[in-house]
Amino acid sequence: MIRVAIIGATGYTGAESIRILLQHSQAQLVSLSALPEECGHVADVFPQFMGRCDLAIEPLDIDKLAGLADVAFCCLPHKVSMQFVPKLLDAGLKVIDFSADYRLKDVAVYEKYYVKHTDIANLEHAAFGLPELFREQIKGAKLVANPGCYPTGAALAVAPLLKKDLIEMDFIIVNAVTGTSGAGKNPSSKFHFPNMNENFFPYSIGTHRHMPEIEQIASDAAGKKVQVLFQPHVGPFDRGILSTVYCKPAGKVTPAQLHKLFGEFYKDEPFVQVRDDAPAVKDVVDTNYCHVFATCVKDMIVSFSAIDNLVKGASGQAIQNMNIIFGLNETIGLE
Amino acid sequence: MIRVAIIGATGYTGAESIRILLQHSQAQLVSLSALPEECGHVADVFPQFMGRCDLAIEPLDIDKLAGLADVAFCCLPHKVSMQFVPKLLDAGLKVIDFSADYRLKDVAVYEKYYVKHTDIANLEHAAFGLPELFREQIKGAKLVANPGCYPTGAALAVAPLLKKDLIEMDFIIVNAVTGTSGAGKNPSSKFHFPNMNENFFPYSIGTHRHMPEIEQIASDAAGKKVQVLFQPHVGPFDRGILSTVYCKPAGKVTPAQLHKLFGEFYKDEPFVQVRDDAPAVKDVVDTNYCHVFATCVKDMIVSFSAIDNLVKGASGQAIQNMNIIFGLNETIGLE
Amino acid sequence: MIRVAIIGATGYTGAESIRILLQHSQAQLVSLSALPEECGHVADVFPQFMGRCDLAIEPLDIDKLAGLADVAFCCLPHKVSMQFVPKLLDAGLKVIDFSADYRLKDVAVYEKYYVKHTDIANLEHAAFGLPELFREQIKGAKLVANPGCYPTGAALAVAPLLKKDLIEMDFIIVNAVTGTSGAGKNPSSKFHFPNMNENFFPYSIGTHRHMPEIEQIASDAAGKKVQVLFQPHVGPFDRGILSTVYCKPAGKVTPAQLHKLFGEFYKDEPFVQVRDDAPAVKDVVDTNYCHVFATCVKDMIVSFSAIDNLVKGASGQAIQNMNIIFGLNETIGLE
Amino acid sequence: MIRVAIIGATGYTGAESIRILLQHSQAQLVSLSALPEECGHVADVFPQFMGRCDLAIEPLDIDKLAGLADVAFCCLPHKVSMQFVPKLLDAGLKVIDFSADYRLKDVAVYEKYYVKHTDIANLEHAAFGLPELFREQIKGAKLVANPGCYPTGAALAVAPLLKKDLIEMDFIIVNAVTGTSGAGKNPSSKFHFPNMNENFFPYSIGTHRHMPEIEQIASDAAGKKVQVLFQPHVGPFDRGILSTVYCKPAGKVTPAQLHKLFGEFYKDEPFVQVRDDAPAVKDVVDTNYCHVFATCVKDMIVSFSAIDNLVKGASGQAIQNMNIIFGLNETIGLE
Repeated sequence: MIRVAIIGATGYTGAESIRILLQHSQAQLVSLSALPEECGHVADVFPQFMGRCDLAIEPLDIDKLAGLADVAFCCLPHKVSMQFVPKLLDAGLKVIDFSADYRLKDVAVYEKYYVKHTDIANLEHAAFGLPELFREQIKGAKLVANPGCYPTGAALAVAPLLKKDLIEMDFIIVNAVTGTSGAGKNPSSKFHFPNMNENFFPYSIGTHRHMPEIEQIASDAAGKKVQVLFQPHVGPFDRGILSTVYCKPAGKVTPAQLHKLFGEFYKDEPFVQVRDDAPAVKDVVDTNYCHVFATCVKDMIVSFSAIDNLVKGASGQAIQNMNIIFGLNETIGLE
Repeated sequence: MIRVAIIGATGYTGAESIRILLQHSQAQLVSLSALPEECGHVADVFPQFMGRCDLAIEPLDIDKLAGLADVAFCCLPHKVSMQFVPKLLDAGLKVIDFSADYRLKDVAVYEKYYVKHTDIANLEHAAFGLPELFREQIKGAKLVANPGCYPTGAALAVAPLLKKDLIEMDFIIVNAVTGTSGAGKNPSSKFHFPNMNENFFPYSIGTHRHMPEIEQIASDAAGKKVQVLFQPHVGPFDRGILSTVYCKPAGKVTPAQLHKLFGEFYKDEPFVQVRDDAPAVKDVVDTNYCHVFATCVKDMIVSFSAIDNLVKGASGQAIQNMNIIFGLNETIGLE
Repeated sequence: MIRVAIIGATGYTGAESIRILLQHSQAQLVSLSALPEECGHVADVFPQFMGRCDLAIEPLDIDKLAGLADVAFCCLPHKVSMQFVPKLLDAGLKVIDFSADYRLKDVAVYEKYYVKHTDIANLEHAAFGLPELFREQIKGAKLVANPGCYPTGAALAVAPLLKKDLIEMDFIIVNAVTGTSGAGKNPSSKFHFPNMNENFFPYSIGTHRHMPEIEQIASDAAGKKVQVLFQPHVGPFDRGILSTVYCKPAGKVTPAQLHKLFGEFYKDEPFVQVRDDAPAVKDVVDTNYCHVFATCVKDMIVSFSAIDNLVKGASGQAIQNMNIIFGLNETIGLE
Repeated sequence: MIRVAIIGATGYTGAESIRILLQHSQAQLVSLSALPEECGHVADVFPQFMGRCDLAIEPLDIDKLAGLADVAFCCLPHKVSMQFVPKLLDAGLKVIDFSADYRLKDVAVYEKYYVKHTDIANLEHAAFGLPELFREQIKGAKLVANPGCYPTGAALAVAPLLKKDLIEMDFIIVNAVTGTSGAGKNPSSKFHFPNMNENFFPYSIGTHRHMPEIEQIASDAAGKKVQVLFQPHVGPFDRGILSTVYCKPAGKVTPAQLHKLFGEFYKDEPFVQVRDDAPAVKDVVDTNYCHVFATCVKDMIVSFSAIDNLVKGASGQAIQNMNIIFGLNETIGLE
């Protein structure tokens, strides 16, 4: 049994991690922690866990965790995360970090989009937790940077094209739409129900922090610098991301070739399904699956992917990474 | 042209009043005011009014209003409202007050559910602004207490039964469901989209402040003391209230008799439609109409009404009251 | 391993049964069947099962099922179900039937609300599959009538009151609200998105087929004839039923006494949680749990329950019944 | 008073036309017609018009219309429309046609995307009813082809760029999202509430019929051939289209220049508002307004527009066109 501690358990990714781990036959929740003012019994914070989980959410005590847990799911915001991760690693735990703090390999880029980085030592050996592209690094990792939700969806939509050098690398447009859970648990005017309901809008125009993350993955996959224009939108639903990616083919390509390419590229991937038509968000909600479909329109390639932002885009992928680290069947708890 | 000032213009009922008044051929918006920190151009607060309304929302200045406006729509919360209403009346304006401050005639009941009353003098002459039951008082009124949304829906569903003494007065259950705009504009965890969406729940069990207001209207209509159990719920939609009212008939009654009774009772009412089947919230959304339907189930009478909580349940009814006060055709601006 | 066949696998309760059974460690899906024109690979009918379930949905062949499966989930509509159930039983399978055909013990009542009954022999020995009230009968049953969604929610909200004889038996009002999945998979004008969205309405006024079913359960629980007025409504969400039940106490009772009574009554029930405040639909969605809360308002008892109509109200409860029949831990696959 | 007949009054654009015309001070509804099997009183078809509109929906009788109406709103599907429009014109009515039949000037393109064209004579003189670009032609027109909803939103987002020759003409990507009312009134599996709710998906990949229409408007605006890749999506809301348009600038341009350009281009347009941030669908719902915003991201121009698909994208624009044809103030009935 893998013993799991969740740090920052009171947010949506914490709750989703609890939900999935309660069904995991080889892992066991041993500790939930949060800021002191958010503590209490898990069922008081999340009525949906009444009778299903008996843990209290307690203030974080890393010393106590040392002997108690094998792995920590660190569901803290960026900046806060890199304050605790070094201590968790020192205490002998493996860490799967949900924040952005260990995702961007280029410190300058990180610091441009976030804050000053304070744990460069661990950043250097952190694995980027997108198994479909970086499984080998994850296997031996002590620290996994769990990818952002948008980068997961975007990367899976274009990875085969990048790996096979089929598109122009200075021109990828990722137009994405997320459900509202991506905005987190804190109430705000934008996500107040009477504003968000029956609404749809773009945000973070030209400035979203996932843009450099998508570029990093894309560049890694392509083996050269890739430019991405990323434009997110939000719609009136709870979960899911639909990415519509527009690329320029480097040469001639047909829809049938694309379908075959994607099928071969993902044929051993347990959580990627290659569709022969457009995926819908509801096809993947509550699952760790990503559905992808690529085709040609006029002189362009248009590729679509759908994921659940809280599962494949966060907690499910974390558990997939945990399974890989501990040498389990990658799909346990996720089917 | 009736010159209208809206006080407390930044909330949902303020916005809805603006929307309707922009279409009103005999009235003209002359002033919008709010707390200083909420001021600004109306289009900055409500992008939907860009290009449609040129007013700035300014801090309230009653002296300036004196010569400028004929009537004030006072969209302030209870307690705050009764601080300003006396001054508005003194300045010579008619006032239509959206708060609860002038609705409950029994000061002890008001003070039990709200706070200490500080303007009893004006409470005594305030008209209760439900035209279908109290049109004559409204006609000559200087101050109209615009009814609550739930009381409007509940009252119209049972008024004919009460007036005709057809039901037992110690037993009326009002089970009501509102859209989320009833909760107002301030963000909260309950109404955060990822919580409210796909959700449905009861609230204020046994304690809702509209319960005594419904009892007062019902008792006035019946000419004797009426007991009401009122249970509100909220569902994942913006607008509308569906009231399902369960009553015990005092004697034998058939569905056909009920249909005839309701038809006759409301035959001259411009905004009440008697249905021969159950109304739906979407049949009345964005309108000042109330759709009602009453029938028999087993030994009970079940009566339904649907209104838009922001229109017939607030701003539309206020405009209907304004039309009555100023001797206009009651339906102007509301069709 | 229990081998499960799902008959009528293409509807929502079929899909939900597949979803849950895919996670069940002691059961295995061996056959999916449907009408010939609806057959095909499960992933073609339900894209959400791509890569997760490899079965084809095939025309029903009871002879083949005989040696292949231990239990059939019969997700057919009423009338059709009782044509196949006798054959399934003859073939040696246990049957959990989702239709109304084996729920109502009084044939006259069944025939008043549905059609002529054609399998009275099996009706007589069918167990009513609400484990919280009828667990002992279910244990040895060959045929279980899985309860309706509304009756499940209503019964769990009032069972303690009925069993303890605390309320007047001629007066129970069940006001319930369901999500739209209760209406099934066939498109219709009422459930066309642009009509149902932002809408809320009552339906089947005085005529809903679950009314006699609720009365039967209530009467069984009370040990005497109980009268129920049941009024369903539908709101713009996918899943969940919130029941608000109004009862008249037979004597004096306090909220604290009710809370204690409910707590004791359900203390050993794995899937009923007694709340100390009102439950919300979202607290139970996607789970087999029922959350209940009862209190006093004026002279009445008001009791609330929340369930997921497709889980505790259908497929989850079927699996709970299956677990009981086969002597497994009742919660396997459902936590 | 302009006398208006609505032909094909039972769909969403018919209902929306009725709703707006009921508030129009210079126009009057004189006739509603539909297929014989859809006829009946307007309030039976649309409960929201109970008490507001007294007309019956009757089978179309063009002879009767001749003396009765000044203008016909032809809300019929393509192919059907061009069977009736010549007769309506012959009867002396002006016609505003909602179908695609008179929109595409190139018959070959029309016939590729639709069917054989049977009324080329009238196609030749039909005005394209987008007032912001083609007001002069509309003024004298007998027949106006009311634009598609997507083309309206897309065109207003890029017209200033095209007119000023600021972008590369072989590269415009229009990524658009519509609410569900765009799919019309007929129930289908895709738009069945339990499927569409909480869902989001692309459709008509590379094949949507509005693609050539957008290209035609864009080419007219630019004065040369323009290539457009158009990809529509649908989300779980009733009304509104958000268009996100990606263009390549022909030379250097700044966000400030774009803002100024758009402001000047639309400064006299009553229904286009130039925003300084991204528009949201809810800012324009139920209005005839289009909100636009353009900026630079990396080396691209990204331009956004929001409209209500049933108002500016259909019925509101038809009334705007009617006002223009009859020499009224363009905004009557639409503010």
